[in-house]
Amino acid sequence: MSLIVHKYGGTSMGSIERIQNVARRVAKWHAAGHQVVVVPSAMSGETNRLLGLAKELSVQPDPRELDMLAATGEQASSALLAMALAAQGVPARSYTGWQVPVKTDSAYTRARIRSIDDTRIRQDLDAGRVVVVTGFQGVDDEGNITTLGRGGSDTSAVAVAAAMKASECLIYTDVDGVYTTDPRVVPEARRMKVLSFEEMLEMASLGSKVLQIRSVEFAGKYKVPVRVLSSLTDPMIPLEEEMSSGTLITFEEDQKMEAAVVSGIAFSRDEAKFTLRAVPDTPGVAYSILGPIAAANIEVDMILQNLSVQGTTDFSFTVSRNDALRTKELLTNQVGPAVGAGEIVFDEAVCKVSIVGIGMRNHAGIASSMFRALSEEGINIQMISTSEIKTSVIIADKYMELAVRALHKTFELDQEK
Amino acid sequence: MSLIVHKYGGTSMGSIERIQNVARRVAKWHAAGHQVVVVPSAMSGETNRLLGLAKELSVQPDPRELDMLAATGEQASSALLAMALAAQGVPARSYTGWQVPVKTDSAYTRARIRSIDDTRIRQDLDAGRVVVVTGFQGVDDEGNITTLGRGGSDTSAVAVAAAMKASECLIYTDVDGVYTTDPRVVPEARRMKVLSFEEMLEMASLGSKVLQIRSVEFAGKYKVPVRVLSSLTDPMIPLEEEMSSGTLITFEEDQKMEAAVVSGIAFSRDEAKFTLRAVPDTPGVAYSILGPIAAANIEVDMILQNLSVQGTTDFSFTVSRNDALRTKELLTNQVGPAVGAGEIVFDEAVCKVSIVGIGMRNHAGIASSMFRALSEEGINIQMISTSEIKTSVIIADKYMELAVRALHKTFELDQEK
Repeated sequence: MSLIVHKYGGTSMGSIERIQNVARRVAKWHAAGHQVVVVPSAMSGETNRLLGLAKELSVQPDPRELDMLAATGEQASSALLAMALAAQGVPARSYTGWQVPVKTDSAYTRARIRSIDDTRIRQDLDAGRVVVVTGFQGVDDEGNITTLGRGGSDTSAVAVAAAMKASECLIYTDVDGVYTTDPRVVPEARRMKVLSFEEMLEMASLGSKVLQIRSVEFAGKYKVPVRVLSSLTDPMIPLEEEMSSGTLITFEEDQKMEAAVVSGIAFSRDEAKFTLRAVPDTPGVAYSILGPIAAANIEVDMILQNLSVQGTTDFSFTVSRNDALRTKELLTNQVGPAVGAGEIVFDEAVCKVSIVGIGMRNHAGIASSMFRALSEEGINIQMISTSEIKTSVIIADKYMELAVRALHKTFELDQEK
Repeated sequence: MSLIVHKYGGTSMGSIERIQNVARRVAKWHAAGHQVVVVPSAMSGETNRLLGLAKELSVQPDPRELDMLAATGEQASSALLAMALAAQGVPARSYTGWQVPVKTDSAYTRARIRSIDDTRIRQDLDAGRVVVVTGFQGVDDEGNITTLGRGGSDTSAVAVAAAMKASECLIYTDVDGVYTTDPRVVPEARRMKVLSFEEMLEMASLGSKVLQIRSVEFAGKYKVPVRVLSSLTDPMIPLEEEMSSGTLITFEEDQKMEAAVVSGIAFSRDEAKFTLRAVPDTPGVAYSILGPIAAANIEVDMILQNLSVQGTTDFSFTVSRNDALRTKELLTNQVGPAVGAGEIVFDEAVCKVSIVGIGMRNHAGIASSMFRALSEEGINIQMISTSEIKTSVIIADKYMELAVRALHKTFELDQEK
């Protein structure tokens, strides 16, 4: 008997029939003697519907009220799943984030989990119940409802698995695993059977939407074995078959994994690039620019400072497109005047394309192969950022699909190794 | 400066535009210097949508999970209203039942409020904020979400007003007050400007849908002045005009009110009649029948025990139609065999029609006028129940409208007195 955490995304919970399928699958695990905690997302479309209502009322709704609003989606789907389980004879009980409680900080719409008290969950599991815990949400020290940001249900699931030392965390989704890149862009993309935690971390942070970045961080920190697999298979397929499907995120680097120099290509249009022209090139100017941005809780991704020309420099950086408006305001009203910038240029027509591979550690020249491939397609590279196991570039977003396809071919990702 | 509680029903909250109108109205009260607590219902249709999903999953969903599900409707509308207020420059904060907290017992789907802690609400009011409190819901001692049953938002509003000793509780709804009877049945029905608390209590308990019965009980217990008024007027009408509109539920019996012998006609199709035939007429048989019903938390309304014939009797009673299925099961499987009933007869084709008036206390013969009026229309009376200020009859439901119109005319309710 193992303790298993299941997570189901919005598409998997998207209709009554699908919720019933989820219940059938969970019932199968329960019948096999496992203790199961299920973390569902809101029914697909629900979060967008709610946020759409909010946008009709306000251009920038109060984040606290946004969380109050958005958290209802998972509460409803969790209750429905508990009912669906009961209808199939499986005793079940659902809990919201505050009921568990899942304690978070107070950063509304992007809160971080601080602790999870599993007392209630364990009592129910020991009583033979399946426990349904709302994804995406928690509660701060003052009792306000918080949410973890888009895709936060992955994080909830892995965090519950970590807190309870679950044997596995199964992330059921509408794709059957993690691919070398998005198959909608490159039809030859292949599903990876295993992927190292570090590669998954890079893939997630670089725009692969399969797993939310913070869930991967949690998995890494607490060594939670995570498997990404399909919720669209027959719910009654044998457990053994289900257990070997999808993509396993592993913590062991075996020989096979070393062989793949580049494992995957990630990309993202969720980028906004800002350039402050003719900034006086004095010590501390980078901090003067980025300090207020960080203070506003906006994450800066890539940074580029050009060579100084006549005592001034051009300073560029990228942020998530969601933060573009706030960043623009900060730069225009506060940072620009303070540092004496000549001009502030804003470009949303950019994207980020990245190659990721744990094998890059031991192989030279991978980045230059990437640059050559892009140059052969006539794609200009605007910014570059590298780490031990990835190289990312910012390019014009009209070239995104072209770049991804070219890189997928260059690194022979369509071929099983 | 007064502390005022506003309650808005689902229709008043039924669209973004209507929520904006509610915000405008609340902003007007706030601007006039009043402290305002607003209790909104879920957007119209939302509770039915949620319960519809539940019914697709289960014939009898777990009541705990039903409450978990249904409570999301008010949470969402409260957050939206707080955003709408902020968009109009009024600082506002929304709270769920558990955040206040509104403590209730654990009778899911029909919980009763035990206490309200107004500490957080007062802090916000003192900071100049409007406070939005979700109607309809609370939390039990184990931290489970509970709901107060249909129309429970009225009760929430009056309970908050009572706990905070508010000057007034304004129930905004889609009608402009309490009428002598439902104008859809009797076009000549008149709006009452004042109504005694006791009459309102009878009207509510007898089927007038304007106010939920428990809210009236709360108002009576804590002497909360309640006004029922329209949310469909221009939100910017002068405060004075708004304050004298609608129907005021009062605790003072003035001369004028004594004059009206019958104030209103209430009616309800929410009735189910059960008859146990040929029950042995032994002491304690009524308790043997009704004890298990009460233990199942089912409220029995009217009771009729016929004269004993040859040691057996027919025993009839009515319950709310919502409880009909459970009552039928109890009678068939448990009560009937236990008391040795000859036959169990179930009739849903009945309704209740009642005349209500505080003046009935001092006037004889009112009930017989009622019976005569019904008899002249050829309507057979199946059961009768009376109190100091009301007389109710159970009749075949096909006669309901006819009976209401006849009684409205008999007691001259279309004429201002």
